[in-house]
Amino acid sequence: MSYEARPGMRVEELDTPALIVDLDILERNISQMADFFAERRAALRPHIKTHKTPAIAHMQLKAGAIGITCAKVGEAEIIAEAGIRDILIANQVVGQVKIDRLTDLARHADVMVAVDDARNVTDLSQAASAKGVIVRTLIEIDIGMNRCGVPAGEPALELARCVASSPGLRLAGLMGYEGHLVLVSDYEERRREVWAALKPLTDTADLLRRHGLSVDIVSGGGTGTYDITGSCPTMTEVQAGSYVFMDTTYRAVRPEFDVSLALLTTVISRPQPAYIVTDAGLKALSKEFGLPKLANIPGADVRYLSEEHGVIDLAEPGAVDLRPGDKVSLVPSHCCTTVNLHDKLYAVRKDIVEGIWPIAARGKCQ
Amino acid sequence: MSYEARPGMRVEELDTPALIVDLDILERNISQMADFFAERRAALRPHIKTHKTPAIAHMQLKAGAIGITCAKVGEAEIIAEAGIRDILIANQVVGQVKIDRLTDLARHADVMVAVDDARNVTDLSQAASAKGVIVRTLIEIDIGMNRCGVPAGEPALELARCVASSPGLRLAGLMGYEGHLVLVSDYEERRREVWAALKPLTDTADLLRRHGLSVDIVSGGGTGTYDITGSCPTMTEVQAGSYVFMDTTYRAVRPEFDVSLALLTTVISRPQPAYIVTDAGLKALSKEFGLPKLANIPGADVRYLSEEHGVIDLAEPGAVDLRPGDKVSLVPSHCCTTVNLHDKLYAVRKDIVEGIWPIAARGKCQ
Repeated sequence: MSYEARPGMRVEELDTPALIVDLDILERNISQMADFFAERRAALRPHIKTHKTPAIAHMQLKAGAIGITCAKVGEAEIIAEAGIRDILIANQVVGQVKIDRLTDLARHADVMVAVDDARNVTDLSQAASAKGVIVRTLIEIDIGMNRCGVPAGEPALELARCVASSPGLRLAGLMGYEGHLVLVSDYEERRREVWAALKPLTDTADLLRRHGLSVDIVSGGGTGTYDITGSCPTMTEVQAGSYVFMDTTYRAVRPEFDVSLALLTTVISRPQPAYIVTDAGLKALSKEFGLPKLANIPGADVRYLSEEHGVIDLAEPGAVDLRPGDKVSLVPSHCCTTVNLHDKLYAVRKDIVEGIWPIAARGKCQ
Repeated sequence: MSYEARPGMRVEELDTPALIVDLDILERNISQMADFFAERRAALRPHIKTHKTPAIAHMQLKAGAIGITCAKVGEAEIIAEAGIRDILIANQVVGQVKIDRLTDLARHADVMVAVDDARNVTDLSQAASAKGVIVRTLIEIDIGMNRCGVPAGEPALELARCVASSPGLRLAGLMGYEGHLVLVSDYEERRREVWAALKPLTDTADLLRRHGLSVDIVSGGGTGTYDITGSCPTMTEVQAGSYVFMDTTYRAVRPEFDVSLALLTTVISRPQPAYIVTDAGLKALSKEFGLPKLANIPGADVRYLSEEHGVIDLAEPGAVDLRPGDKVSLVPSHCCTTVNLHDKLYAVRKDIVEGIWPIAARGKCQ
């Protein structure tokens, strides 16, 4: 006898904690985002850090995405193995082992990487030219997040010249991520601030072009800013990712996408009428953006998550008929870090399991 | 060519983020805890939720531990596959698939489980007796954590009678976890509160015995309370786990154990002298107990972790000679949830990799 789940099962039969995606909502989110970009100059290159699942990357490409964005070489390796060629690693790739992996991957995929340091450019160039591969390169510009990236203007121009003259590398353009603005709650304020943040990116693109450097790609954006950044005439690519699943945090700023992701849990204890305890804690749900919410039980609030327990208070205990063995769905506050805790994603339509997808890039933080 | 790490490498050669355990400190922590219990009536049954690594479970058993504690059936399956027989699942096992797995496991290992619900006792009993296996059972009592567990006294007696009369189950004793007290910062206050919390457990053990029920095992405790709970004459087993690795949170209440765990990261960017960015974010480090700390760089503080970046401010930029490619070690604030993000643990002695251990129970939240 096997305990493994299989397509055709009803969702209530799944062992828990089980990460569930509602296929109707997932497909709607993917096509809705594709529709937006179908009418824009900018294209969608979705970030797969959210789902880490090749099956979903292929759905995004089929809907019109021009390629895939990753955060890590390990994610890019998984995506390339899944047959996808056009891959941006929207991050610095630093260190000998990482650069070896990146340049080996460049034999089998058309990889693109971000840089913000001249020595790193030299290292990448040496490895790429030694192997006879070409690595497309974006200059990352810090547009206000105070994370990675060179300053706009002259420093970016200087690094771009360095890339342009480095064998094995091809200057592909610029990248700037307005990650500090993706959750600004007031939409008009978000729009104003994003446009202000993109201005130095636009100016730097112009500066590079005036100096005869090619800037085919200007990449940025996330789910919180996709329409703002995606409407900016400078931008050629948007890296949104979370829109496929959504969560309680993104839902607050992006009501046009529904939440397709849920964690199915089992009530393991109801020691008192006023609360239940489920089998999902911090090892199955992240909480850096807040505690998860209950999808279908009014007046129920997660009190806390310990490592393997979720304690849920019931405002109206008499109205809630739940006992050990019953199942309860939770909506994560942050889809990306929650997905990274799971090996499998159960793809469900109208309560029937249609697919069990390996979250193949789970844990690929190297 | 393989990118895989191998024993004999220097730690600086490892690709990052890499979870590192210092073997000298790990061995010292294990033997120090074993020494404590060697002189006590209570025995150590270490919780493997911390390390999830069979290699370390075997080190604990060799040092004198009487068996292993797990949180989930999936962890118990991994531990049993590793050849360990005496396993407590210190948690409710609820639902048909889980109970099937537990009772199948009972054919190959001597499993013990916690219960706090009569219907769950019936379900366990039916499955165990149908398969002709015996599942040892502990009545979980809520001793103040307000999580799982029946109240002390009569309700516990009633459930114990139910277990004692259930075919396929054997009443083994009681369990109570003082998890709400393990981090009380003042030691004397912690001691007083733990003794008060254990009183109802002691009284209930006496009550059961007066009614002719056997109470061979009374289990509880964690790293924060091991010596207090382990000195209580009622207790026969202590479930401490975090002492093997420690972290910044446990170190504050348990200075007698050193921190053996660190996350090795690579500086990927130093866009300004005042801060560095490393390649480890929330997908490699947990932060529900606070941000990680830097082991060896005075005046350096983690400003924030995003998903795949750690941004670290430098109080004295001029004194810190770090640039992209350099490696930096971070000490997690919570070892258990950080370990659960990684597939491999690099066992290091004096900067040389001695072993690369699969964190085999990583992600086994089912």
